[in-house]
Amino acid sequence: MKGRSPLRGSVVLLSGGMDSATCLALAARDAKPVHALTVVYGQRHAREAASAKRLVRHFRAVEHRTVRLPIQSLLPSALTDRRRPLPSRRGHPSRGPIPATYVPARNTILLALALAFAEARRCRSIYIGANAVDYSGYPDCRPEFLTAFERLAARATRVAVEEGRPVHVVAPLLRKSKAGIVREGEKLGVPWGLTWSCYRGGRRPCGHCDACRLRRKGFAEAGIQDPLVGS
Amino acid sequence: MKGRSPLRGSVVLLSGGMDSATCLALAARDAKPVHALTVVYGQRHAREAASAKRLVRHFRAVEHRTVRLPIQSLLPSALTDRRRPLPSRRGHPSRGPIPATYVPARNTILLALALAFAEARRCRSIYIGANAVDYSGYPDCRPEFLTAFERLAARATRVAVEEGRPVHVVAPLLRKSKAGIVREGEKLGVPWGLTWSCYRGGRRPCGHCDACRLRRKGFAEAGIQDPLVGS
Repeated sequence: MKGRSPLRGSVVLLSGGMDSATCLALAARDAKPVHALTVVYGQRHAREAASAKRLVRHFRAVEHRTVRLPIQSLLPSALTDRRRPLPSRRGHPSRGPIPATYVPARNTILLALALAFAEARRCRSIYIGANAVDYSGYPDCRPEFLTAFERLAARATRVAVEEGRPVHVVAPLLRKSKAGIVREGEKLGVPWGLTWSCYRGGRRPCGHCDACRLRRKGFAEAGIQDPLVGS
Repeated sequence: MKGRSPLRGSVVLLSGGMDSATCLALAARDAKPVHALTVVYGQRHAREAASAKRLVRHFRAVEHRTVRLPIQSLLPSALTDRRRPLPSRRGHPSRGPIPATYVPARNTILLALALAFAEARRCRSIYIGANAVDYSGYPDCRPEFLTAFERLAARATRVAVEEGRPVHVVAPLLRKSKAGIVREGEKLGVPWGLTWSCYRGGRRPCGHCDACRLRRKGFAEAGIQDPLVGS
């Protein structure tokens, strides 16, 4: 189908955490117009969704959609089930087997929704904050997963098959350490105070869960003060 | 992780139409226990979901989950938007370009949800009623799409990566004509009166939309009376 406008802009998967906030900053610099997509899948830290809203305003995305996906009953995970204990063991969450906060096929679902959104808006790319360094335990944060999804996307949509314009998956943080992400975000002016990481949804970060520890470590190694923690 | 139980049974994507009903009958014969998954994504014919419930009882699936996915605002399609006209041109819906009833990345989303469900229940396979003959216009009903999804699934989940047990995608109707599906379902005892095909959600099938035409043609060619139409 010749003559249709080329694809432009991006869909950014935006949870409201520091990784997706940095992704949003990158897309706002490199892949405008930006359409943000927040998927609330019953995770405990729904507070992230409020952060997402503020980040969208800050970076002037042209659109922000929130999809509520009530899949807790399908998926047992410590991230979606309040009866399961959250992991807060010492050290690095990527050690050992796949963590208890793993949600079955989570990134497959998120990317599938982003793909639909990208096709509907004729976007060129999907930005996802997947990270294979700190989340090496998650199968769907690995480069081979993302490559397989991109191959799927090239066969899945009308824009790809009929127009020969596949949607690309961009994972700019894939091989960065948490400190590297903090440095990158800092350069791009990410307002860290608007982001949220803690797995528990309290008023202040708990400081003990894997997400809090990882965040603290990242800021410490980057030598930057986290405004959420206070000095 | 040795010593965990092998995968068994299946997740069946069940809309309540005649194709997914036939899939359910096949899974009930070949891949028990059966976990049925109905995704209501704002399509007009939500009436299919009521059919799904009755089919699940008939074929004694061990579980039936319905996920409501409010994605109409993401996706422009005649199937989800009441302002767009439904196609009811003469002849075969697969002629010409991709039909107006195409929903962006629909089967990618459905399979992603089924994959999550299958992993959570430790199922061996996903059954999907995709059909490349009558729905050849849909990119995500083609064999190459399903193969790409299976490759993705082998990289996406804990059961695949940690245990070496990928979930398989079974599309038993992929190369059958509608008449072939009717014959297959008839052999398996599919109660056609409980299924629903019409894109419009009235009390009786409209008889004019693509789905009604295709259904009529299938029953006629198979020489079988459709109980929904009356003699």
